[in-house]
Amino acid sequence: MVFKNLDDLLKRNIKRQRLVAVAAEDLHLLSAVKKAYQENIITPILIGNKKKIIEICYNIDFNVNSVDIIDTPQNECAEKAIELIKKNEGDILMKGLISTSQLLKSIVKKETGISGDALLSHFAISQVPAYHKLLAYSDAAMNIQPDIKEKAEIIRNSVRIMRKLGYNNPKVAIVCPVENVNPKIESTVHAGLLKVMNKNNEIEDCIIDGPLALDNAISIESAKHKNINSEVAGDADLLITHDLNSGNILYKAINFLAGGSTAAIITGAQVPIVLTSRSDSEINKFYSIVLAAAL
Amino acid sequence: MVFKNLDDLLKRNIKRQRLVAVAAEDLHLLSAVKKAYQENIITPILIGNKKKIIEICYNIDFNVNSVDIIDTPQNECAEKAIELIKKNEGDILMKGLISTSQLLKSIVKKETGISGDALLSHFAISQVPAYHKLLAYSDAAMNIQPDIKEKAEIIRNSVRIMRKLGYNNPKVAIVCPVENVNPKIESTVHAGLLKVMNKNNEIEDCIIDGPLALDNAISIESAKHKNINSEVAGDADLLITHDLNSGNILYKAINFLAGGSTAAIITGAQVPIVLTSRSDSEINKFYSIVLAAAL
Repeated sequence: MVFKNLDDLLKRNIKRQRLVAVAAEDLHLLSAVKKAYQENIITPILIGNKKKIIEICYNIDFNVNSVDIIDTPQNECAEKAIELIKKNEGDILMKGLISTSQLLKSIVKKETGISGDALLSHFAISQVPAYHKLLAYSDAAMNIQPDIKEKAEIIRNSVRIMRKLGYNNPKVAIVCPVENVNPKIESTVHAGLLKVMNKNNEIEDCIIDGPLALDNAISIESAKHKNINSEVAGDADLLITHDLNSGNILYKAINFLAGGSTAAIITGAQVPIVLTSRSDSEINKFYSIVLAAAL
Repeated sequence: MVFKNLDDLLKRNIKRQRLVAVAAEDLHLLSAVKKAYQENIITPILIGNKKKIIEICYNIDFNVNSVDIIDTPQNECAEKAIELIKKNEGDILMKGLISTSQLLKSIVKKETGISGDALLSHFAISQVPAYHKLLAYSDAAMNIQPDIKEKAEIIRNSVRIMRKLGYNNPKVAIVCPVENVNPKIESTVHAGLLKVMNKNNEIEDCIIDGPLALDNAISIESAKHKNINSEVAGDADLLITHDLNSGNILYKAINFLAGGSTAAIITGAQVPIVLTSRSDSEINKFYSIVLAAAL
């Protein structure tokens, strides 16, 4: 199964999902929610300042007569949303006008939260004109400096999503600056170990190779120039970056320099979390909702 | 002075320079050298296996009748080349069929080398279709985990090059995953300090801002969305990445996903060093020679 477009991958088996928007009084959020609602992808539940929400919806021609709007003070929005998720009244969580850290705090709270002991991680999948298929990558926005155990979890989180999307045994490249294990470069040591963990079935349902530099992961010509023999090289489905610095640069380079369109979520909690940033384009916000709904 | 094309920037005041190629018996090197020779950018001095060099040159229609070829055993090529540079018989060093580490070892050697106490760093400058001007960045290939002092040197090395190319006070973005100083994210701490060092004139001849995420460094819309007020945001000339992981990913993303063309050298030694890799395109190798010749 090889897809080049996000539409083709994400919109195959969509069943309408209930999206809970936290502090929904935000133009960008409501624009994306409107589009997804009109395309029958979600049923929104809008939590926040009801007056402001209705005002914004009016301005963007979003008829919310039949939409649930729960008037809630700003500092109670996150708790209220998570309560709904726990009562199984919502399938997706989406961040609005609330700080990421405030929302995450409620999500990971020991007893009342919805993440248990699981590691939360960021997962993104992009269509990039220069690549011959969709390109997924993690972690661009959540884990600052994952250790080897956390990286294994990040891969498992990502592969779980990709299997749900229909991938069978995705090809995973551990992206490093060089192709050999060099004890002075921690990412290459992690890469070597993750490859072994894959061979030992400690990380399953995927084919891991690394260390691979980005060009060798995505360009078959590059891999040939370097005499790299690997099932993954030049044909990676999923890239695992070393840390937040490298992951975030990859995300931004794909979206702001390489003409990419991207769906991204936080995964690991009971439900997918849509956590787009202000600077993300409308279409990326929409795709992120579609991705969450497809899971 | 704003240039969108490498040709426009690099070919303004070229005076023919003497390029010393180390272990020159390499098809890719000789192809790039041929082009630069024919365009009157360099006079090559080819060190290495003379028989093989002549054979390859014959195959690519490169007439080397009037070119210096110094027949030298592989393990003596680097020393021989550096000897020429020290005798002021060469202006540029270029790596051929020799390992990077072997060449660098000779370059940094205490008494016989050509780097003194200076920090060597990698400098790249790309034309990228999605950006409104040329985009320089460092360090994508040399320093693994620079500390704050080394980063200051990396900036000084880069700014020195840019001034020679005609830049006046280049705008420097310290690229991080977020826009605020967060003690848990080392790159943001470095960014804050580098900005202060710039204000205190410890790093001169440039305008430094950071922490800036990549999108805020290169997209004025992104910067506006985030309410970032900065002379650098959206208009950076030079990006400084945190470490080799992030720098290398930026380099590869620009060249393999964003359609970039790039000139790159190692700077900090007595002469510029052209150190391209096998997977670099012909045009990037050529541009790297032109950059070295322009300095």
